[in-house]
Amino acid sequence: MGVPTPKQFCPILGRPLISYTLQALERVCWIKDIVVAVTGENMEVMKSIIQKYQHKRVSLVEAGVTRHRSIFSGLKALAEDQLNCKLSKPEIVIIHDAVRPFVEEDILLKVVTAAKEHGAAGAIRPLVSTVISPSTDGCLDHSLERARHRASEMPQAFLFDVIYEAYQQCSDYDLEFGTECLQLALKYCGTKAKLVEGSPDLWKVTYKRDLYAAESIIKERISQEICVVTDTEEDNKHVSHLLEEVLKSELNHVKVTSEALCHASRDLQQIILDQCYNFVCVNVMTSDFQETQKLLSMLEESNLSFLYPVVVISVHFLDFKLVPPSQKMENLMLIREFAKEVKKRNIWLCGLLISYPQDEQKRQESLRQGAIVIASLIKERNSGLIGQLLIA
Amino acid sequence: MGVPTPKQFCPILGRPLISYTLQALERVCWIKDIVVAVTGENMEVMKSIIQKYQHKRVSLVEAGVTRHRSIFSGLKALAEDQLNCKLSKPEIVIIHDAVRPFVEEDILLKVVTAAKEHGAAGAIRPLVSTVISPSTDGCLDHSLERARHRASEMPQAFLFDVIYEAYQQCSDYDLEFGTECLQLALKYCGTKAKLVEGSPDLWKVTYKRDLYAAESIIKERISQEICVVTDTEEDNKHVSHLLEEVLKSELNHVKVTSEALCHASRDLQQIILDQCYNFVCVNVMTSDFQETQKLLSMLEESNLSFLYPVVVISVHFLDFKLVPPSQKMENLMLIREFAKEVKKRNIWLCGLLISYPQDEQKRQESLRQGAIVIASLIKERNSGLIGQLLIA
Repeated sequence: MGVPTPKQFCPILGRPLISYTLQALERVCWIKDIVVAVTGENMEVMKSIIQKYQHKRVSLVEAGVTRHRSIFSGLKALAEDQLNCKLSKPEIVIIHDAVRPFVEEDILLKVVTAAKEHGAAGAIRPLVSTVISPSTDGCLDHSLERARHRASEMPQAFLFDVIYEAYQQCSDYDLEFGTECLQLALKYCGTKAKLVEGSPDLWKVTYKRDLYAAESIIKERISQEICVVTDTEEDNKHVSHLLEEVLKSELNHVKVTSEALCHASRDLQQIILDQCYNFVCVNVMTSDFQETQKLLSMLEESNLSFLYPVVVISVHFLDFKLVPPSQKMENLMLIREFAKEVKKRNIWLCGLLISYPQDEQKRQESLRQGAIVIASLIKERNSGLIGQLLIA
Repeated sequence: MGVPTPKQFCPILGRPLISYTLQALERVCWIKDIVVAVTGENMEVMKSIIQKYQHKRVSLVEAGVTRHRSIFSGLKALAEDQLNCKLSKPEIVIIHDAVRPFVEEDILLKVVTAAKEHGAAGAIRPLVSTVISPSTDGCLDHSLERARHRASEMPQAFLFDVIYEAYQQCSDYDLEFGTECLQLALKYCGTKAKLVEGSPDLWKVTYKRDLYAAESIIKERISQEICVVTDTEEDNKHVSHLLEEVLKSELNHVKVTSEALCHASRDLQQIILDQCYNFVCVNVMTSDFQETQKLLSMLEESNLSFLYPVVVISVHFLDFKLVPPSQKMENLMLIREFAKEVKKRNIWLCGLLISYPQDEQKRQESLRQGAIVIASLIKERNSGLIGQLLIA
């Protein structure tokens, strides 16, 4: 990858890659324990990650010098019924890579079910490139027929006894140079693994470009929903409704909901619980940030911004013809102070002043501009713009 | 990829992927002709891309229904000495994919040199995943030793007569189901291709995540240099010099240069010719946008923004204690009009108002804030922020 940080610890939106992978596994309620093999030098880093992101059901074991030795360490920890050890031997064990953060419950279930029946199972993908075999002089010896081969990916699942037996039997050469767990189960236990077609998302973060791709995928995933929040009476609600409509028509593929800040906000609480990470707060009260502050307090009280940065855009409307924007800006510049405060809680606050002229066509155009700015703030999730007051 | 547009036409920073690949090949002066195989339905799109981005030395042929048939079409176009045809038979032909935009001259030279000696040569990469062979019942038959196999990538190069002969000889089955040109040269001409280790950059844009990765790589490549432009006399130059210093210390890996707008600007012209895509224009004259306008005119006259969007950040300084920023903002809001105008030329203009207090420590802090905003505008190249006036 060309960076000094081991790739599983590289940050994506501020959080180490491995934390995303742990989150993906944790989400699956039928996974009882997660054992992570970590080298001695990274043990403290790993412990602090688990603490900071409150990962549950995770045990750490010391990694070996090769992939197979690390897996063997993990299996041993599950096999041994030590005193003071909260781990117990499972029926099925899943083997997964720290650098494959996008594993879904669906494929986990498929490999586990197949492992129960066949003793072993693993995810596969079609080959992207043709595979060739070089001769010793660095020339082409032969190429493999692409349709007859597959890339072996993760996750894989095994009857615990099968894979543990295989690791106990296998040679030092296997432990040093082997790469394929399915092969060990075949070689030492005669278990023919079932191969399960996986999605492209299973790919392994290997190069720097994969880190870029992972960041874009995560940004895309948390930008699928925008909640427009407002605190006004019905008859004043017009402007926020208009903005909501424009957002809906401008942002395809994004779910736009709207919620009231008032009335104890049961619905808004639900939206937060359902993990919407993007809020557009429409301010129409006399005090410029009354609504925004209310929303920020609710978000701070929830644990929403724990795993992902939450974007809040505080929207203000103004007829630039009647009031020069500069006059309003004086007050709105206060947003920088609010933003600095909530940034500590991983809430990324920006302001947006939308021109609101009398002329309907012009108004529609400035709402459209506003929607474009909102879309790009949410999609790009650029921390350098925290506290800025933008204009549409 | 899950999108309706064929991947070679997917836009990256507004420009279709294939145009980046053509640019990479065009740059290499010893490549005489570039033949692109295009399906009938995409012929007009391809013609308009070539025209819009002024690609040179490109001929189009109609693609076949499979990869091998398309390559054969391209070879025929080079082989036949038709009347009115500007193509002539080359000694060596390179075969490359439209969806591998990051091919470097270095690897092109290596495969061509090796092809001259061996008759055929191709780039290879280590395998990322273990390759396995499934049995007919969807179980593991055997896994291949990873160290003994390689992924065959592009570019590949051939003595023209060798590969043309191979395609003329090969069977319909090969043309329908084959994937590997090196294999055809081996099978039909007995030519053992030399395998050349390539860089990770040779990877093929296959999935949506690859498009994300490609965009990030391109953004990174054009963000390696920032030119700070100023038009003041030496003794006034202080402020731009300070900003330059902070940019240098805040932005590692980025080359920060500074140039004067005055004196016919020979040096600035050279920076533009050398393809710096990021400009910070420090405005200290009485008229708020005098310098920025001068710079914009120069950029418009050059063809710099032709292939990539050029980011220009118009920087203004103000002691917020002495003059409330709102007062200055009134004028600076004009930036939206300038931005709208130059956006048509692919120049992305933003404004940045940096607080400039008397207190040195505070001043340093606001310059640092300014550098962070500049860095994120340049790195993220977010078109949604065009025309905004940011504050540090």
